[in-house]
Amino acid sequence: MATAKANKRIVTALVALALMCSAAFYALAQQASDAKKSSPAPAGKRHTLAATLETVQWGWLDPKEPPKLTVDSGDVVSVETMMHAHDKVRPGITMDEVVALRRANPGGGPHSMTGPIYVNGAEPGDTMEIRIVKIVPKPFAINFNLPGKDFPTIGALAPEMPDGFIKFFTLDLKKRQAEFKPGITLDLRPFPGTLAVGIDPNDPSPRKGGSTDPMAPVSTLRPWKNGSNMDINELQEGATVFIPIFLKGGLVWTGDSHCRQGNGEVNLTALECSYREIAMQLVVRKDLKLEWPRVETKTHWIAMGFDEDLNKAMVNAVREAVDFLEQQKMVPMSRYEAYSLASMAADCRVTQVVDVRKGVHCMIPKSIFTKKS
Amino acid sequence: MATAKANKRIVTALVALALMCSAAFYALAQQASDAKKSSPAPAGKRHTLAATLETVQWGWLDPKEPPKLTVDSGDVVSVETMMHAHDKVRPGITMDEVVALRRANPGGGPHSMTGPIYVNGAEPGDTMEIRIVKIVPKPFAINFNLPGKDFPTIGALAPEMPDGFIKFFTLDLKKRQAEFKPGITLDLRPFPGTLAVGIDPNDPSPRKGGSTDPMAPVSTLRPWKNGSNMDINELQEGATVFIPIFLKGGLVWTGDSHCRQGNGEVNLTALECSYREIAMQLVVRKDLKLEWPRVETKTHWIAMGFDEDLNKAMVNAVREAVDFLEQQKMVPMSRYEAYSLASMAADCRVTQVVDVRKGVHCMIPKSIFTKKS
Repeated sequence: MATAKANKRIVTALVALALMCSAAFYALAQQASDAKKSSPAPAGKRHTLAATLETVQWGWLDPKEPPKLTVDSGDVVSVETMMHAHDKVRPGITMDEVVALRRANPGGGPHSMTGPIYVNGAEPGDTMEIRIVKIVPKPFAINFNLPGKDFPTIGALAPEMPDGFIKFFTLDLKKRQAEFKPGITLDLRPFPGTLAVGIDPNDPSPRKGGSTDPMAPVSTLRPWKNGSNMDINELQEGATVFIPIFLKGGLVWTGDSHCRQGNGEVNLTALECSYREIAMQLVVRKDLKLEWPRVETKTHWIAMGFDEDLNKAMVNAVREAVDFLEQQKMVPMSRYEAYSLASMAADCRVTQVVDVRKGVHCMIPKSIFTKKS
Repeated sequence: MATAKANKRIVTALVALALMCSAAFYALAQQASDAKKSSPAPAGKRHTLAATLETVQWGWLDPKEPPKLTVDSGDVVSVETMMHAHDKVRPGITMDEVVALRRANPGGGPHSMTGPIYVNGAEPGDTMEIRIVKIVPKPFAINFNLPGKDFPTIGALAPEMPDGFIKFFTLDLKKRQAEFKPGITLDLRPFPGTLAVGIDPNDPSPRKGGSTDPMAPVSTLRPWKNGSNMDINELQEGATVFIPIFLKGGLVWTGDSHCRQGNGEVNLTALECSYREIAMQLVVRKDLKLEWPRVETKTHWIAMGFDEDLNKAMVNAVREAVDFLEQQKMVPMSRYEAYSLASMAADCRVTQVVDVRKGVHCMIPKSIFTKKS
């Protein structure tokens, strides 16, 4: 893409910066004390992956989908994304059309997923480190809730909101703002709502068409160990996500592009947009074993938990936060100490309550670690 | 108290500052369009209320407890607080003793509550505006989890943490820090875990001794419409809480003093401390009608929801956030627009999951309102 090429030098500089920040911090905190520390991955080749009907799938992650691009660990890929439902949910659409599109893909998510990207050398049991280097949105966006009378379980207040409601936005990409209405302005904070590696064959989510084959396509609706529809608001430019790998080649997808979201995503949607480019460095980590994804930002480590029941999602997120604190090697501590520290310092937020499988994430501030080695 | 007197001038200046910030912002946002706007309350008289066995009750809010102090609306009260269980849970205590104290007051909270303070003119249906002017902790603190084998429902990971664990802290009040262990330092962020007005006779919480009298004492364990054990981490110095009043005189209590807490308070306790002084300006608002408490900080309005089920607490918090946005008068909007805006801009956090009745609070950033009138 022309824009991606024009920005190549900036991206290269950002990649170098991200390498220095991310690898240094995470290496300190990683769980395996005897793990072979991987050197910061060199900034590899640059690739682009445009969003077309050939490269984008609507609503399902199919492990048998042929890769659209093959890269090496350390390469940077600039991926284009579409709006929901193969780019059909765009400004000007009516609520009736949104509802019809939702019903046209039963069980599948509305999300348009660009991918999969095959990463050479990635094997089940490894971890995919995805560094969000840069995000350039396209200049329009949408927010809506589905009519509660027809979708009474989708959205925090669905039973109290019988009608559908939709709002269109023209984004000011220079100011990185959207006007909600005169007097209310939202700063853009783009992040990929959905970022997945290939499915976990043990994911209890239903498969497409009710198949019992664990390798049948999985809906993009439910976040899980392979990431998918995490909707982690804090996964913005400069952040890194670590996702356990289940299938050979990793198989990276992204979609459900967001330009801003509150923790909770309460009416069902964020400021839903699409990206001209999301530049991601993909690094295969042989030295890092995870069961669930984790995020690292400049200021925090973020543990996450998912479940259909928010009470259980919270427990799962807390367990992950305690695991992280117990396993980090900067300041060794017992599991009870980790539990105690999480109680005083971890900031647990409601990721979302609208993805069937709800989410909580707990943010552990790096600033509490005052010992440098 | 000597310290309170010495700090009088600083407090007076802070009160003036708080008045300017708080009243100006909230007046803009208040819900009743035709309400008579109250002028900023003049900084009234100063009072102190020391914590003694006469002024502090352990674990129950009794609406028949005689007031320990009577003040006028606008007065500032410097309240001293105790550690849990009438100051018995202090550094050096054993876990067996903590457990014995917990069992010594069945159904009641561990909290030591200083009060009640009777505010002249406060009537049921009014709102108590409590401005947190200043907090000065005493220089020690505790964090602990109860043994999960004996208390399997208390604490996010209780079934996985069979043993009790307790940790003592000496606070560095100059640096406003606590050392968790060498290499980990926590900045102090004190806030009252429990801040209540007199009970709501319709609170479904059980009453002391199983009484069916709605005016029998209510445990301090469960947050409710009258505030009580809210554990809202963001209610720090400079913040203001607005609590609906149910009983004549308002009847303000505070206790469960915290020196730092993560959102979630996951192991049961925060950095539990006590205060030499928490200075609060108490303002009776006749012009403001609320059903549930709300908090205002310099940067956010905070709506809250409670329920034994975190899923329902979330829904309740979202409804409160949408109510707030729909009712504010700075930029009029429909309820559907308010729902949409909350989805993109409100940051919902897990307040706590350890108070029997769990909490979620949604933070609405003031910065999105770019229109000044």
